[in-house]
Amino acid sequence: GSELLSAERAKSNISVEKLSNLLHTKEILERQDRLLKILQADKVFDKSQNYFDGRVDKFKTALARAKRLRQLQIKHNWSHDEYVAANDLVSEPGPYGLHASMYLTTLRDQGTPEQHKLFLEPAENYKAIGCYAQTELGHGSNVRGLETTATWNPEDKTFVLHSPHLTASKWWIGSMGRTANHAVVMAQLIINGRPYGPHPFVCQIRDMKTHLPLDGIHVGDIGPKFGYNTMDNGFLLLNKVKIPHVNMLARFSSVDPATGKYLKPSSPSLIYGTLTWVRSTIVLQSGGVLARGVTIATRYAAVRRQFQDRDAPAGSKGEDQVLNYTMVQYRLLPLLAATFALHFTGKAMMALYQDNQKMIMAAANPADSKRGAGPEQTHSGSDLLADLHATSCGLKALGSTTAAEGLEVCRRACGGHGYSSFGGIGAWYADYLPTTTWEGDNYMLTQQVARYLLKSARSVLKGNAPDNDTTRIFNTFLQKQDMGAAHDVLGSDTDLVAAFAWRTSFLTFEALKHRDVEKNSWNSLLVDFWRLSTAHSQYLVVKNFHDALQSESLRSEVDPETLDVLHKLFRLHALNTLEKEASEFYSSAAVTVRQIQLARTKAVMKLLEEVRPHALRLVDAWSFPDWQLDSSLGRKDGKVYEDLFHRASELNPLNGLTIDPYPDNDVLVKNDETAKFKSKL
Amino acid sequence: GSELLSAERAKSNISVEKLSNLLHTKEILERQDRLLKILQADKVFDKSQNYFDGRVDKFKTALARAKRLRQLQIKHNWSHDEYVAANDLVSEPGPYGLHASMYLTTLRDQGTPEQHKLFLEPAENYKAIGCYAQTELGHGSNVRGLETTATWNPEDKTFVLHSPHLTASKWWIGSMGRTANHAVVMAQLIINGRPYGPHPFVCQIRDMKTHLPLDGIHVGDIGPKFGYNTMDNGFLLLNKVKIPHVNMLARFSSVDPATGKYLKPSSPSLIYGTLTWVRSTIVLQSGGVLARGVTIATRYAAVRRQFQDRDAPAGSKGEDQVLNYTMVQYRLLPLLAATFALHFTGKAMMALYQDNQKMIMAAANPADSKRGAGPEQTHSGSDLLADLHATSCGLKALGSTTAAEGLEVCRRACGGHGYSSFGGIGAWYADYLPTTTWEGDNYMLTQQVARYLLKSARSVLKGNAPDNDTTRIFNTFLQKQDMGAAHDVLGSDTDLVAAFAWRTSFLTFEALKHRDVEKNSWNSLLVDFWRLSTAHSQYLVVKNFHDALQSESLRSEVDPETLDVLHKLFRLHALNTLEKEASEFYSSAAVTVRQIQLARTKAVMKLLEEVRPHALRLVDAWSFPDWQLDSSLGRKDGKVYEDLFHRASELNPLNGLTIDPYPDNDVLVKNDETAKFKSKL
Ligand SMILES: Cc1cc2nc3c(=O)[nH]c(=O)nc-3n(C[C@H](O)[C@H](O)[C@H](O)COP(=O)(O)OP(=O)(O)OC[C@H]3O[C@@H](n4cnc5c(N)ncnc54)[C@H](O)[C@@H]3O)c2cc1C
Ligand SMILES: Cc1cc2nc3c(=O)[nH]c(=O)nc-3n(C[C@H](O)[C@H](O)[C@H](O)COP(=O)(O)OP(=O)(O)OC[C@H]3O[C@@H](n4cnc5c(N)ncnc54)[C@H](O)[C@@H]3O)c2cc1C
Repeated sequence: GSELLSAERAKSNISVEKLSNLLHTKEILERQDRLLKILQADKVFDKSQNYFDGRVDKFKTALARAKRLRQLQIKHNWSHDEYVAANDLVSEPGPYGLHASMYLTTLRDQGTPEQHKLFLEPAENYKAIGCYAQTELGHGSNVRGLETTATWNPEDKTFVLHSPHLTASKWWIGSMGRTANHAVVMAQLIINGRPYGPHPFVCQIRDMKTHLPLDGIHVGDIGPKFGYNTMDNGFLLLNKVKIPHVNMLARFSSVDPATGKYLKPSSPSLIYGTLTWVRSTIVLQSGGVLARGVTIATRYAAVRRQFQDRDAPAGSKGEDQVLNYTMVQYRLLPLLAATFALHFTGKAMMALYQDNQKMIMAAANPADSKRGAGPEQTHSGSDLLADLHATSCGLKALGSTTAAEGLEVCRRACGGHGYSSFGGIGAWYADYLPTTTWEGDNYMLTQQVARYLLKSARSVLKGNAPDNDTTRIFNTFLQKQDMGAAHDVLGSDTDLVAAFAWRTSFLTFEALKHRDVEKNSWNSLLVDFWRLSTAHSQYLVVKNFHDALQSESLRSEVDPETLDVLHKLFRLHALNTLEKEASEFYSSAAVTVRQIQLARTKAVMKLLEEVRPHALRLVDAWSFPDWQLDSSLGRKDGKVYEDLFHRASELNPLNGLTIDPYPDNDVLVKNDETAKFKSKL
Repeated sequence: GSELLSAERAKSNISVEKLSNLLHTKEILERQDRLLKILQADKVFDKSQNYFDGRVDKFKTALARAKRLRQLQIKHNWSHDEYVAANDLVSEPGPYGLHASMYLTTLRDQGTPEQHKLFLEPAENYKAIGCYAQTELGHGSNVRGLETTATWNPEDKTFVLHSPHLTASKWWIGSMGRTANHAVVMAQLIINGRPYGPHPFVCQIRDMKTHLPLDGIHVGDIGPKFGYNTMDNGFLLLNKVKIPHVNMLARFSSVDPATGKYLKPSSPSLIYGTLTWVRSTIVLQSGGVLARGVTIATRYAAVRRQFQDRDAPAGSKGEDQVLNYTMVQYRLLPLLAATFALHFTGKAMMALYQDNQKMIMAAANPADSKRGAGPEQTHSGSDLLADLHATSCGLKALGSTTAAEGLEVCRRACGGHGYSSFGGIGAWYADYLPTTTWEGDNYMLTQQVARYLLKSARSVLKGNAPDNDTTRIFNTFLQKQDMGAAHDVLGSDTDLVAAFAWRTSFLTFEALKHRDVEKNSWNSLLVDFWRLSTAHSQYLVVKNFHDALQSESLRSEVDPETLDVLHKLFRLHALNTLEKEASEFYSSAAVTVRQIQLARTKAVMKLLEEVRPHALRLVDAWSFPDWQLDSSLGRKDGKVYEDLFHRASELNPLNGLTIDPYPDNDVLVKNDETAKFKSKL
């Protein structure tokens, strides 16, 4: 293994260090080294027994790790970012997960100064542990349909939290099952019998000393899951639980305790921005998430040798690395390209988001972004923000789907060994999967994108459109529509990007016709909308990747050879996407059938060949420490077989069990030495 | 839940019973009821704690179940089929898995009568427990590359089994890790320093009494996996282990003990046939495997209500069943159609296989089907068999990929609850996944299909082609190629099938040009071959579904209304496949761009609407008992929420754990009552 990987690395001249710095920055890479040393020295983070325990022990270990991480944070005075980075190295969801993210964030964003003092401060010091309880057994996507009620009681100035039906039980709430003693509960505010929609309330759920549930509260863990079993997702039934007035988070809306009057939200724009920010983060992370799988599979495919190439000259010796087979390249290298495409797209989104923070603040009254996906209501707020918001929805869906499904492609590319937990992809994939469902189900989100695109198209037709990228591509399309497009996708990068823009525009105006002219129902168009959103998001990724490669900052950071390879990755990503989605490119007349065929049979295959020698260095640039990957197949030194064997033979407790194999004997175990394996640690 | 499902069932008139009998036969359904009662009465098969144990306990439970199943087999005098059916109801891979399948089969097929007496008889009586050890750490697909050696020793008439390198270690061997005391070991036969390729040897690996490994044998479990953790896949290193001459399975090839001469295989056609049979079984099962996920997701989508349709008339009440959203229909109903398509295809393959058994026996000398996928060598054996063999390779790949990926689509369609283990799809999916890798990696198999199609195309061009379906469609294509096709895919079923045939033919002759005229390397064409194989296999599924609906036997078994719905499923399956693979249908000129657009935007959407009312009855016809599905979401009575809540709240041992939540306290657990949950059983 080792020699094969060295030989691979010798094939390419691109600078791993420079590319790595470009992806992460030098500071962050140094920080990673520093954190890694601390974590590796600590026995509680030993990963070798991660896959053997049952649910209860798994959770206990995760709790021990969560506590230690927090202790280390205090000891080393880590910032929040450092804490998160350390957590990433440990790479498992922990019981404080939702406390450290959503609970603190919600209190911070939606609490008043008084509430910060009361709830946020103890939470920041882990004197109170919280979670974010929105989803119910019966309602997830449709937040307005939540059934938990918070009824204002003017007599004693309290709210009564109540779950009127079984389906009103909070469900899926991270950190709630066993860990939290507080929750932000989203509940329908009711004043005087009138409902005012879902609002956030802080509710203590367990005793601060005994940690037992308080009166009127039925809380627990919802059970085992496909992944995320180190986390205690929980349920919560509330039986007329009284909370004081101050427990309604009141930064935006509130109830006047004296009069019982509902005070409307002054500016929920911040939440609107936060959602965009969260989704942009998912886009940015999706590149790195996928890169873990691509790193493992690419390294393994360079070590794994199987068969001799059938056209190999007679007398040639040894088997081929499977990375040499075009079928393996075709599965892995476009994903390698996608990791960079998504990364640069995420970066661009983040930058745009930050640039626009001020506009967000100034935006008058954007509609509540949490309303369910549905027909096209117009936002009165900033159009740029609306663009950014829609963009983040579409890209969150595309990015997380690409990463999740790409990981499984990587796992399968490793053949049988990909199925072993020691391969390192399976558990990572299983833990990542819910990202396709939370923060907006990926299919649901596409409706929001379509709604925005339809609205933009209408404004372009009316001539009252704001100037942004979306309206610009629509205008271009409308101007050239009758002349045809003739994009030289094989010869010109800008034409390649323009072909994606053309397809989006075509699909938008088609959908607009179906909706506005033919008056088709919203429901009948959902599949079209999903296609449209996907097309638009693919355009955005291609465009952002292209823009990144043009940017001065990138060009000054990497050498020409690396830039050339990145450019090839750009073309590989774009042309591969184009040929996979060929039919929409034909039918929109963005390109000709002949061009697609050439892209498929020639251009993409040639790019695979050109990228292949750099594959190892490209994944090295992602800079995952071996300890983080925890993968026999993805080891940087290529010692795949030695590591697989060592783990199976020496670290596998099942091998301490000697059984009786005969069915007529009810005795199962002759000798149990499984405990020995644990104590070896 | 219950009322919603009753209402659903009332919407359709198709006869669940008749359709169910068509799928399974009445006898098998009755047998299922009978077996179910026996299993459910037995505490060891209780499924409620399946997801909580660690690897060791999981394995112990699986072993207990395996023993009990065998005891029940004896007690009730079950046939092998009944035993397998019972196993299917239990639905988990067990430690006797490879003993009861591959070990017994290999002994039976490849052993001489003497060897049957010696090895098969005790194995059939579970006095010896075996496994099938082919794959090694370093070699899976490339069987010829196996490194384990079996060296003939003429002095004492023995073979010496040896693992010369670490990579020669047997790996992934089901039932070997802890359970088996015997193995069929595939090893390179060496006589007089000369290698004769891989051959099967019976090797005892553990003591029959102590169950400890014998001298020179290092054997154990390979560790945790993405699924299949109830099975002990094992490794085996052999250090010069001596076995007697009789341990080489000698039905086909053997070594003359007197002279040390290698005796060539007389007729390996049976193995060739067996492989075809195994793959056909995978095709047939793929329909049922997918149907479990489709049953769960469809029932849940009928119970789950989320949002009100945005175009719903004002004043209408209640939320919509998510099955009403076209986006959900588009994800689920084509998969429902695929379950039937795959089932009928598998049935047809099996029938064809049986019809041809005699020809197989008569076939002179077909090439060794286990040789690695590679360039096009011709088989001298029966052409029909070659057709069947290639067909089974392509369909195995397509069927298992469709089932595996379809299950994940079903899981995701269930939103958040699909991620819960109680949903019932996740573990089933994880256990099924290796089917895409074993019995020929799905990507590798496509090379064999392409090789066969190229060979057939050559013979058609030369005019010396045998008469079979493949050569017929090629001839049709060649005759009409210049006139163009003009398939009326929207109006005529036969044209629809013919369009698929056309596409296969087009791609075959394109590939042939690349290979024979342009002299491209085999490796450079692998992606084309994969596309070709997929296209061909899709054609076969469409054709077989179509043929099944024309068959007298089917038409006499179901009523006209059911037949009509099945016909719609056929069209949905074919048109949905066509529009998903649109670009190859365009570029081959099988259909026009306009037709594809109509298929996509009109025909498929209309079929979804027409199939939708029958969805519940269609999944009911698959007849999975609730106990088998073990799914809160897929319960026949629709009591989704009650069941989820009950399992989480009452059957979840993690809820017996009261923890200390504060990070400054190293104490993790305040009170541990998790054992209570176990003893409840
Ligand atoms: C591991 C995990 C952790 C979580 N953690 C938390 C947490 O800490 N706090 C919290 O509050 N929540 C949490 N959630 C819940 C999560 O946010 C929801 O699962 C998510 O919002 C999806 O909602 P749902 O499950 O109700 O799906 P549903 O809305 O029921 O969707 C079911 C299906 O119907 C489709 N569908 C629904 N409506 C429509 C429509 N109008 N048009 C077309 N299709 C439609 C969807 O696409 C989906 O396929 C978590 C979930 C998971 C899996
Ligand atoms: C759960 C499980 C149970 C199993 N049980 C058994 C058992 O009981 N007994 C037993 O003997 N085996 C068993 N196996 C092993 C199984 O048969 C092999 O994993 C399978 O044959 C694939 O081989 P491989 O893993 O070596 O993949 P490899 O051949 O190493 O393939 C790795 C990758 O390279 C690609 N590739 C390889 N060669 C080529 C080529 N020439 N052209 C293009 N691409 C190529 C493949 O597509 C794949 O993506 C089991 C495996 C699993 C996962």
